[in-house]
Amino acid sequence: MTDFFKGIPAVKYEGPSSKNEFAFRHYNPDEVILGKRMEDHLRFAVAYWHSFAWPGGDPFGGQTFDRPWFGDTMALAKMKADVAFEMFDILGQPFYCFHDADMRPEGANFAESLKNLNEIADYLGEKQTKHKTKLLWGTANLFSHRRWMSGAATNPDPDVYAYAAATVKANMDVTHRLGGQNYVLWGGREGYETLLNTDLKAERAHAGRFLQQVVEYKHKIGFNGAILIEPKPQEPSKHQYDYDVATVYGFLVEFGLEKEVQVNIEQGHAILAGHSFEHEIGLAAALGIFGSIDMNRNDYQSGWDTDQFPNNHAEKAVAFYEILKAGGFTTGGVNFDAKIRRQSLDPEDLILAHVGGMDTCARALKSAAALMESGEMEAAVKARYAGWSDPKAQAMLKGSLEDAAARVIAEKIEPQPKSGRQERLENLWNRYV
Amino acid sequence: MTDFFKGIPAVKYEGPSSKNEFAFRHYNPDEVILGKRMEDHLRFAVAYWHSFAWPGGDPFGGQTFDRPWFGDTMALAKMKADVAFEMFDILGQPFYCFHDADMRPEGANFAESLKNLNEIADYLGEKQTKHKTKLLWGTANLFSHRRWMSGAATNPDPDVYAYAAATVKANMDVTHRLGGQNYVLWGGREGYETLLNTDLKAERAHAGRFLQQVVEYKHKIGFNGAILIEPKPQEPSKHQYDYDVATVYGFLVEFGLEKEVQVNIEQGHAILAGHSFEHEIGLAAALGIFGSIDMNRNDYQSGWDTDQFPNNHAEKAVAFYEILKAGGFTTGGVNFDAKIRRQSLDPEDLILAHVGGMDTCARALKSAAALMESGEMEAAVKARYAGWSDPKAQAMLKGSLEDAAARVIAEKIEPQPKSGRQERLENLWNRYV
Amino acid sequence: MTDFFKGIPAVKYEGPSSKNEFAFRHYNPDEVILGKRMEDHLRFAVAYWHSFAWPGGDPFGGQTFDRPWFGDTMALAKMKADVAFEMFDILGQPFYCFHDADMRPEGANFAESLKNLNEIADYLGEKQTKHKTKLLWGTANLFSHRRWMSGAATNPDPDVYAYAAATVKANMDVTHRLGGQNYVLWGGREGYETLLNTDLKAERAHAGRFLQQVVEYKHKIGFNGAILIEPKPQEPSKHQYDYDVATVYGFLVEFGLEKEVQVNIEQGHAILAGHSFEHEIGLAAALGIFGSIDMNRNDYQSGWDTDQFPNNHAEKAVAFYEILKAGGFTTGGVNFDAKIRRQSLDPEDLILAHVGGMDTCARALKSAAALMESGEMEAAVKARYAGWSDPKAQAMLKGSLEDAAARVIAEKIEPQPKSGRQERLENLWNRYV
Amino acid sequence: MTDFFKGIPAVKYEGPSSKNEFAFRHYNPDEVILGKRMEDHLRFAVAYWHSFAWPGGDPFGGQTFDRPWFGDTMALAKMKADVAFEMFDILGQPFYCFHDADMRPEGANFAESLKNLNEIADYLGEKQTKHKTKLLWGTANLFSHRRWMSGAATNPDPDVYAYAAATVKANMDVTHRLGGQNYVLWGGREGYETLLNTDLKAERAHAGRFLQQVVEYKHKIGFNGAILIEPKPQEPSKHQYDYDVATVYGFLVEFGLEKEVQVNIEQGHAILAGHSFEHEIGLAAALGIFGSIDMNRNDYQSGWDTDQFPNNHAEKAVAFYEILKAGGFTTGGVNFDAKIRRQSLDPEDLILAHVGGMDTCARALKSAAALMESGEMEAAVKARYAGWSDPKAQAMLKGSLEDAAARVIAEKIEPQPKSGRQERLENLWNRYV
Repeated sequence: MTDFFKGIPAVKYEGPSSKNEFAFRHYNPDEVILGKRMEDHLRFAVAYWHSFAWPGGDPFGGQTFDRPWFGDTMALAKMKADVAFEMFDILGQPFYCFHDADMRPEGANFAESLKNLNEIADYLGEKQTKHKTKLLWGTANLFSHRRWMSGAATNPDPDVYAYAAATVKANMDVTHRLGGQNYVLWGGREGYETLLNTDLKAERAHAGRFLQQVVEYKHKIGFNGAILIEPKPQEPSKHQYDYDVATVYGFLVEFGLEKEVQVNIEQGHAILAGHSFEHEIGLAAALGIFGSIDMNRNDYQSGWDTDQFPNNHAEKAVAFYEILKAGGFTTGGVNFDAKIRRQSLDPEDLILAHVGGMDTCARALKSAAALMESGEMEAAVKARYAGWSDPKAQAMLKGSLEDAAARVIAEKIEPQPKSGRQERLENLWNRYV
Repeated sequence: MTDFFKGIPAVKYEGPSSKNEFAFRHYNPDEVILGKRMEDHLRFAVAYWHSFAWPGGDPFGGQTFDRPWFGDTMALAKMKADVAFEMFDILGQPFYCFHDADMRPEGANFAESLKNLNEIADYLGEKQTKHKTKLLWGTANLFSHRRWMSGAATNPDPDVYAYAAATVKANMDVTHRLGGQNYVLWGGREGYETLLNTDLKAERAHAGRFLQQVVEYKHKIGFNGAILIEPKPQEPSKHQYDYDVATVYGFLVEFGLEKEVQVNIEQGHAILAGHSFEHEIGLAAALGIFGSIDMNRNDYQSGWDTDQFPNNHAEKAVAFYEILKAGGFTTGGVNFDAKIRRQSLDPEDLILAHVGGMDTCARALKSAAALMESGEMEAAVKARYAGWSDPKAQAMLKGSLEDAAARVIAEKIEPQPKSGRQERLENLWNRYV
Repeated sequence: MTDFFKGIPAVKYEGPSSKNEFAFRHYNPDEVILGKRMEDHLRFAVAYWHSFAWPGGDPFGGQTFDRPWFGDTMALAKMKADVAFEMFDILGQPFYCFHDADMRPEGANFAESLKNLNEIADYLGEKQTKHKTKLLWGTANLFSHRRWMSGAATNPDPDVYAYAAATVKANMDVTHRLGGQNYVLWGGREGYETLLNTDLKAERAHAGRFLQQVVEYKHKIGFNGAILIEPKPQEPSKHQYDYDVATVYGFLVEFGLEKEVQVNIEQGHAILAGHSFEHEIGLAAALGIFGSIDMNRNDYQSGWDTDQFPNNHAEKAVAFYEILKAGGFTTGGVNFDAKIRRQSLDPEDLILAHVGGMDTCARALKSAAALMESGEMEAAVKARYAGWSDPKAQAMLKGSLEDAAARVIAEKIEPQPKSGRQERLENLWNRYV
Repeated sequence: MTDFFKGIPAVKYEGPSSKNEFAFRHYNPDEVILGKRMEDHLRFAVAYWHSFAWPGGDPFGGQTFDRPWFGDTMALAKMKADVAFEMFDILGQPFYCFHDADMRPEGANFAESLKNLNEIADYLGEKQTKHKTKLLWGTANLFSHRRWMSGAATNPDPDVYAYAAATVKANMDVTHRLGGQNYVLWGGREGYETLLNTDLKAERAHAGRFLQQVVEYKHKIGFNGAILIEPKPQEPSKHQYDYDVATVYGFLVEFGLEKEVQVNIEQGHAILAGHSFEHEIGLAAALGIFGSIDMNRNDYQSGWDTDQFPNNHAEKAVAFYEILKAGGFTTGGVNFDAKIRRQSLDPEDLILAHVGGMDTCARALKSAAALMESGEMEAAVKARYAGWSDPKAQAMLKGSLEDAAARVIAEKIEPQPKSGRQERLENLWNRYV
């Protein structure tokens, strides 16, 4: 036992009226909602990077956090893992997620970095057997080290492509060994800073081939988890190829991967791309590529990725309604890709941020589920599109443009608009939030 | 002859030092650039809607323009056409573009609107024979009338789908008859205001089927022009399905139309979607769906579609460089989807706005062409990606993830980053602007 | 009685569990909160323009609403007033707000417009005596008619300044006569489209003098209400002089009006200026110029003023907390500067949008009041700044830079950062929402 | 001599047709424009921080630059200074700017940091005597070290206020000693992350008092340079008190400092605040607080401060036109607050970025000067406002609201709108760019 969280009790459900900071007021893992335990609906995961590896810097200031495990040795990496699992226990977290760079010291060369990765993975594997927390997904950090500055799979230098392949292979191996349920790729540097020095077409082709190789390798090693792409429009790059869900879908279809790869959607990234979070989820579901979510919130007045913990259940409820409509998660889950503010220095802050985030999601889920159970919203939508059940309408879709046109003339069709009833449905929504 | 432009002379090329407001200083139609006449490179078109049908209103104010042809009769529609061709003559415009609603009075019912459309199309056809201006593209306005308020092909009411089919058919017929070189679809209401009342999946399916019907009809009538989709992320709708080039590409592939349909890219729409104009052009070219452009500029500090005339040649040059790299236009062209400010009341303003826009484009084209001719930028990009010509690099793409990974270990690859030289290339760029 | 709202019952409070669409679930006018009736806290007002004068158009489409009172005659204007007061009765609205242009037909000249205004004002005055709804504020529409296209008080043409003066005087007279509690100025065209044609300094000077004249006139006629400026950064103009609260404050101080004029803050305008609504309220309170609010919500993904009805009480609660901290409203109130979507065609939509908006605000107010009553947030903030109560700290503010500097050396001060506890306070917040 | 820039020649003016990368094509220091040498117009300065202290990190990646002077010793600090002056010589820079933190190693405590600062300042002072480069301005870094994480003058802890006072005093002393022509304050952490934990009113009061103390100290030590505030809306803080020029003006007036303090305006900051650069300059000039500029460009599609070197002279020309209208710089200048991209690894990149930026500005200045010399734009603006020269118009400003109103009735004024001629003026503009 480290003493980082000394004195902080395990967080338990105490109900909405509790005034205990270290209690859940909404998240009650065993409560059954729409026939499933809340824990199995939400499948929460802690992000190793924000909670344990981030020093609190921003573009205008350096480290603010003072963590005893900061440093580059394997011993410190193990202390970090110890603290992480202590936090998982306090929160009752079912899952966690990592990049290689969060967990192991960078070695002097690839072989050494790989050795470090394997050693820490073994250490985490042991911890997993002693704690209830499992691995939701692993991923490779292909953006922080200077070798990735011009991209990984899309780098002008093919040696970097090779290095990316070796790194992803190592992380897939480790994720597989640790029972990870998904493997994620976020292309933070797969994009460009300026078109002037960029061969856009070649870079996209390399990115597509790389992803095919990843999928082929997945099958070869018998990894049953999902391969997930995480869309983001920009930052750090000026333009990133995996801009949003629709862009990723086009990319997957181009490379024949739309049945093999799904998306991990982040609220903050959706917003930076000009979309609501619920849009991205709903669209991914409609396209058959919905996988998992990175839960956080973005500041609506800031133009960068603020990765804050969610704290508005009314807003998140819409997202959970889309998730429920999509059938909920299978291998995916709710990963808190959220970081405490750099002024939140105390160990308590780290715990309480997760408590707040988990409660916000639980409350949102309950609202969404109640609305779904009522069937009221679904009925309203069905009624709006009822005309399409008419065989004539269906025939029109099968027929030709001129057939449809002919009907207008023959039947003297002059459509009368009908109310979209938006405010009414918003009121209905609010009866459940 | 109407007397709307009375006293305004035909605008001719007088060269950069001219102080004549009614002269081109850069646009010289017959000047040969990269082996092609400037006019044939640029293929300018005037947009009927902004220049002749827009009354000068905005969300907070009504009509400011006082045009003798405003009104709902066929006689006024013909006066409008007369004035339009007078302007085309003054400017020496090779092309124009229209929506049905710009040209003909709305009828009391579909049959009457169709009759009006055909009558005005005949009138325009006659004018085309007497003037040198041809039709670049036609399109149907499926967004202004209240019947379209909840979408056209994506409307919850199948009767509206039928009406859209009839309207598009009529516009395709007219475009074909008038020798139009393209047919454009912009889905301003093909999207949603709120997910709460929307069946996203059904709407996308309907939109996809509609586009297939359009393509089938094109072949049936032997229309040889291109079918173009115009992407826009939002406005008027909160979310529009044809968000940007990447989104449209995914949509086309989903419905098997990526060889049949191209994009008409607008600068202002690119920006609203979070992209530079040159990005959208370069991406469309890489995906093989580049068709045409709507030229204007957006105010970078405004969050809506300001549709201003372009006035910064340095900025536009980057877009023209991408167009030249894509091989230039075939059926497409440079349509000024730009409107004079609502305070620009005078007939002269309408002419001079086009003069300025044409000169800005001409100057941009010349800069881009000079850079291309020098080969300097291309050489720099080639040098940056030179490593990919190595057979080992190409083999790596064909091989597996683990092959590439094995190379890193075997060859002890530790890639060293190389300068991206962005500022250098920006300086190079500026030698040509 | 008109029959526009026929069959719609008066809306009453039925409590959170009511499933009646035409009932309040949270707004209970007589419920006492922090020692004041809820109605007296919220002081709701209906905006005449959005609810009764707006035809449903947007930049890409025309009228969608079909209202029997649309048209330009005095008889129709009176029917509109009848319907308006019927809606006020149904909703139990204590207040309404208007522009002249919402209520009266534009005349052929100023004298006729004035006559129309006076006639309709008399008609409204009579209605006020028979209904419980009073006038929260009046204002002049100085932006819709083409005469205002280049500004009102800031117009390059001094005749327009005169016309603006005459129009504002008329509206102040009418507002005064109708017992209005405030008079509002929104400078939608007081700004510019391009600096190229603008004398910024002269325009600001004219705007400042105009506002002084307004204040002088207020005192002359004995109007006891507040004069309010409504900040907005842009739209319709590219840049508007009353950009945000901080800008307006600087403007007021420059012209010696900071004790005479307050601000009417709109949520959507705050967001367009890059601020949260609560920031603008909190800042106005700190500067002593908080007056009233225009309640609505903006779409966070849209870059224009969407003026939607609020529907997220969790978000609005933060704004109400700032209002409560500022001591609540005196002459101000909560004006719904919100419009139903243009697809919301039915009379019911108009009623239900207000019901939803009122409930959202009531719920937000109750949350904010409970938090305030608990004193928990206030105590946390006080504790954070406790060091400033130290006399040494206060002395430092009175002293010089070098005194403070000397202390650092003498006392070897090396400040240690303390947690800002943001997530903790967000959790605390959520206990009350 | 270090050998960092070995082999790079001094950069000289060779004219527009030069193909030498290491030559100016537009910046010709001795060329006389509007009666003043170009060097004296532009007063270029290099920013020490971006060019010599920034390691190339971004929020998603660490150091990319490999500079021999990186490290924490005084010897390395001196090597950095040596390289800096070598670069100044190569470029012929008349000025540079610094923060304390750019130049000296942080000490173990205040006294040590101060000692380091004084030592390096002496070293720089000596260099200044041997080179032609002078100090444009100095400033204190009150945002990078963790002690400033919650603000400097606005920190909840008064000890941090004291530390800020001591730090600013030290930097003012050094700036004064080195002959600096201005002293700048940028309040990167003077703002808040969340209103929940913030006493906005107290923080503003402390910021105001701090600035008064700075001004008092300036007078005490006889520093004749200007005190400049640099506005920025946000980043790193969620909201910063010095949001934009208008906000700073209000703040200055509130604390009686509008005659004592001016603004240093940065292009990127203007854009983040929703303004064009020229707006901020024009407004500052109108308010009498224009001081200096931080020249860079922001990426219009990115929502954070990208601090890129300017490369579009057409765009910058508008800003220089405003500067010329304001009478040009007195103590201020053009500081390149711009950084090369983190992929631009080579020493050449650093030089060429400045060459490009200087040429862009020189070209912009020449365009603006030519336009100004022609008087054409000025004449157009004068003509637009000519009506205000009428004594009746001036009388109206001195009179009352009801006087102006009476004129409308008596004289039957019905103003007719006149064209704003925007496109025409944009064309005029383009004749000079």
